[in-house]
Amino acid sequence: MKFQILQEKLKEGLSIIERVVSRSLTLPILNNVLIEAGKNFLCLSSTDLEIGIKWWALTKTEKEGSITVPSKLLSGFVGLLPNKKIEAGALKNDFFSIECEECKTKIKGLSAEEFPLIPKVSKEEFISVKSSEFCRNLAQIADIPALSATRPEISGIYFSFQKNQIISASTDSFRLGEKKMTPLKSSLLSPKTLIVPQKTIKEVINIFGIKETELKIYFSPNQIMFESLMQETDHPEVQLVSRLIEGSYPNYQEIIPKKFTTKLILNKEEFLAQLKQASLFSSKTGEIKLKREDSRVEILSQNTELGEHESFIYSKIEGEKFEISFNHRFLSDGISKTKSEDISLELNGDSGPGVVRSPGDDSYTYVVMPIKGN
Amino acid sequence: MKFQILQEKLKEGLSIIERVVSRSLTLPILNNVLIEAGKNFLCLSSTDLEIGIKWWALTKTEKEGSITVPSKLLSGFVGLLPNKKIEAGALKNDFFSIECEECKTKIKGLSAEEFPLIPKVSKEEFISVKSSEFCRNLAQIADIPALSATRPEISGIYFSFQKNQIISASTDSFRLGEKKMTPLKSSLLSPKTLIVPQKTIKEVINIFGIKETELKIYFSPNQIMFESLMQETDHPEVQLVSRLIEGSYPNYQEIIPKKFTTKLILNKEEFLAQLKQASLFSSKTGEIKLKREDSRVEILSQNTELGEHESFIYSKIEGEKFEISFNHRFLSDGISKTKSEDISLELNGDSGPGVVRSPGDDSYTYVVMPIKGN
Repeated sequence: MKFQILQEKLKEGLSIIERVVSRSLTLPILNNVLIEAGKNFLCLSSTDLEIGIKWWALTKTEKEGSITVPSKLLSGFVGLLPNKKIEAGALKNDFFSIECEECKTKIKGLSAEEFPLIPKVSKEEFISVKSSEFCRNLAQIADIPALSATRPEISGIYFSFQKNQIISASTDSFRLGEKKMTPLKSSLLSPKTLIVPQKTIKEVINIFGIKETELKIYFSPNQIMFESLMQETDHPEVQLVSRLIEGSYPNYQEIIPKKFTTKLILNKEEFLAQLKQASLFSSKTGEIKLKREDSRVEILSQNTELGEHESFIYSKIEGEKFEISFNHRFLSDGISKTKSEDISLELNGDSGPGVVRSPGDDSYTYVVMPIKGN
Repeated sequence: MKFQILQEKLKEGLSIIERVVSRSLTLPILNNVLIEAGKNFLCLSSTDLEIGIKWWALTKTEKEGSITVPSKLLSGFVGLLPNKKIEAGALKNDFFSIECEECKTKIKGLSAEEFPLIPKVSKEEFISVKSSEFCRNLAQIADIPALSATRPEISGIYFSFQKNQIISASTDSFRLGEKKMTPLKSSLLSPKTLIVPQKTIKEVINIFGIKETELKIYFSPNQIMFESLMQETDHPEVQLVSRLIEGSYPNYQEIIPKKFTTKLILNKEEFLAQLKQASLFSSKTGEIKLKREDSRVEILSQNTELGEHESFIYSKIEGEKFEISFNHRFLSDGISKTKSEDISLELNGDSGPGVVRSPGDDSYTYVVMPIKGN
């Protein structure tokens, strides 16, 4: 194997690839990146057996071949090199050699034959989205799931891919987020309903969130694949393949209230700032209380060991009086993920769920359960 | 107690004061800041029993008094408030009350009487320096000491304060740094030789390093005090009092070689970059080898598990051939702390200490021991 590549390009690929490298003691090859020099393309691959990533770049290949090398070491080393031409190669399948400017390096590797296969995903049906916009949308609900051994299905993010709509949702049983989006293109023959691991979605956001390209999504019965293409070619640049979570997602639509008893319109930044102040004096359950006080909302928190705090925020208030307690973090999380200057908070009595939305935008819905029994 | 202060001012004071707050379970009052409202000044104090800090600001005091309050909580809370006027007070010596804009807060405190005294330091003799310059100078050697239970004296930083010169030095027995400075003013009757804890010097750098004022240093037999004044007044703004380390500092001057067998002049950034690359392939002892190769220095590292690396750097070389091994971190540390574009590295055979300096500047000297026996 022998090829040439610019330091900057190789660094870019390694920074994507090393995101899923595991630190496996039982299967050391999972710490490695697979380097394959083909006729015109260099391909880097990594996998943690749940997620696999492949990345391609155009290269000058003098001699085709492949090897695997410890990913963190290679990435750390390449990051320290100047942005000049790198001459890379393999010595007897044991060492990966790098020459750049005044330096010569040999890194001990493992044979490419031992590297696990990354599953192939059928390209029969796809749906596509604008990469950065899709990732910004997903980021609104991607932090909600909590790892749950007893209910693995809610540790992932629910998707319903339909011809003209994508619905995503997540919950940790204390709160629920839903985000609706419109696809760019679609060749779906039937809707796809599936649960994607949270880690996968976080990596999708990290890798594809900075790209202003089209992001194609493909489906297999147990796998999903996200793919972006190289600029001005049909050749893939990045493919991320992930397993899906088995099981059926709870019928979460039932939980979203259809009406409300009180509706508040609040300035988002001001409300978040006051919730943060109040949070310092909340009890162990993170409880803060909201209460109507004429045309203002009073925010109260109290902790016998630390002290107490009250503050007021002006609000448009429609509907009944209220006095309701929430976990400050769960309430703030949902509000901070809205994309508007004001937010609406709909309440359902003093013990029903609260609903956070951006006024005039029903693509994002956040339901938060109150703390009961005060 | 009742006083008024701007949020920004109080935040500034708390950010200084909370640096030495300890998280003491046995003596909870050490977690607290002492708040004293005097006639025209507010004074905040904190101590971890080794270092004590006092900070003053002009205030409008309606009623004098004092209380202590958990430092991290108060600092975190004040940091979240808008930069507006704060009305603060004490309620029955139990609670510290804060009102700012639309919020009212009570924080549970402890009586000021329980707060430990911060030692007084005599103002008879002093030496003064330019605050930010003094801190930049100390930063060149402040990271060197290592905590040592068996040799507590080298876990601190050595000072010799003389009428016309300040000499500071530190070592961890593998390397040694010395920095000489010129004082601004001095009323010293006799030279003062003492050892200051590393933590104290790090806090001095953090607190006084951003100030362009005069920094006065006072001495007691077992304490040292650093003091800056409020702008355009004679009133102290910050006082930091620290205990000293007992014992006598090793006669380190003996270790600094008086001559050399080889002298290299190297570009600092380039040499540091190459040392960092080489460090990834160094052995467990952090060993990298330097070797003369015509008019270049060859840098070599080798690790049986990871691979090997060699690179070359052009250098002015004066004197004998050499082949010498250093711990890469110890060598890089001393080089990175120089303030010049080029550095000089003086060698003393293949097993004598190396000396790093800035060419033409003898205020900074860094001695590093080689790794022997290859």
